[in-house]
Amino acid sequence: MALPRSVETLVRELSRFPGIGRRSAERIAFDLIGAPPERRDALSAAIGAIGTVIGVCPDCGYFTEDGRCLVCLPERHQDTILVVEKQMEILAIDKAGGYRGLYHVLGGHLSPLKGIGPADLRIEELLHRLATLPVRELILALEPSVEGDATSLYLAREVEREGLRITRLGRGVPMGSSLEFSDAGTLRLALDGRRTLEE
Amino acid sequence: MALPRSVETLVRELSRFPGIGRRSAERIAFDLIGAPPERRDALSAAIGAIGTVIGVCPDCGYFTEDGRCLVCLPERHQDTILVVEKQMEILAIDKAGGYRGLYHVLGGHLSPLKGIGPADLRIEELLHRLATLPVRELILALEPSVEGDATSLYLAREVEREGLRITRLGRGVPMGSSLEFSDAGTLRLALDGRRTLEE
Repeated sequence: MALPRSVETLVRELSRFPGIGRRSAERIAFDLIGAPPERRDALSAAIGAIGTVIGVCPDCGYFTEDGRCLVCLPERHQDTILVVEKQMEILAIDKAGGYRGLYHVLGGHLSPLKGIGPADLRIEELLHRLATLPVRELILALEPSVEGDATSLYLAREVEREGLRITRLGRGVPMGSSLEFSDAGTLRLALDGRRTLEE
Repeated sequence: MALPRSVETLVRELSRFPGIGRRSAERIAFDLIGAPPERRDALSAAIGAIGTVIGVCPDCGYFTEDGRCLVCLPERHQDTILVVEKQMEILAIDKAGGYRGLYHVLGGHLSPLKGIGPADLRIEELLHRLATLPVRELILALEPSVEGDATSLYLAREVEREGLRITRLGRGVPMGSSLEFSDAGTLRLALDGRRTLEE
């Protein structure tokens, strides 16, 4: 027994969402079929709207709406830039709270295997901002992986200059996790990065 | 820092999907923003299509497309009807394989607390089918819950007649599960429903 053709089409489109498998897509599709038409219309309209309204900030690389960037605000500390790979990560860091500086979206990390070189990332834009803003600290918050680390090292050499502190995020065991299930690499990093209780 | 207004709207709509929380909705929204316009158009079109093409079969209650039901097929055994609460469950049972009879969507279960009585379920339609089809077995595959069981009992009394076998799905420990983590109710059902190895 197959799905009705139009449901199958919808399931296929929904399966492309990150983290959504075939079964979740089916559940969502059936939910949408049973939903009032207004909900489907609102969803379609919302999907259409982002295509026409959303742009990318030429400075930080986050999204703009009506040409305004929600990240490059004058009230944010202009002396710190935190570099992430993807826009989504800005949300996560902002939710964590405590960071009041600027952001910069790199657009990924260097990956010779995938043919991603320095010219494919927003490095020129970063150098331009470092030359025009009173930046004293650059926080490299790239993916904690071999390629992320290699990109951080590359960036650090590119932007190196007197009076610019270059840092990366702390590493170790995540809050609420169980030591028993932590991988060896994480435990090693946690040991290396140990602090005295007073700190 | 807020999300751009149009992204916030999209996230809110996506959060209504079953099993999708705020964070997953954000991830999907960001993915859609970065997707090629054709993908967004295809998704919107698919959502629009189900609203205009999909109907409900007056007999079994599953979905129809172009007026044709994909479940009420002449090649399916007309002597057995399997009753489920929701359309989605037909998919799950069909995937499991082995069932070649007809289906009937009840539309939920009796729930005095939520004000759902017999008239709110597709019981009349079921009685009509039992009166017109050569049905010899009725399989009640409602939710394994107190309310599901109460509805099964109610139905069994309503449809009772000479020569009609009324069954429900077997219960016990699910395949691949761990006894250690099974709840007491399930273990009790599994014990009560134990079989000799020859069966």
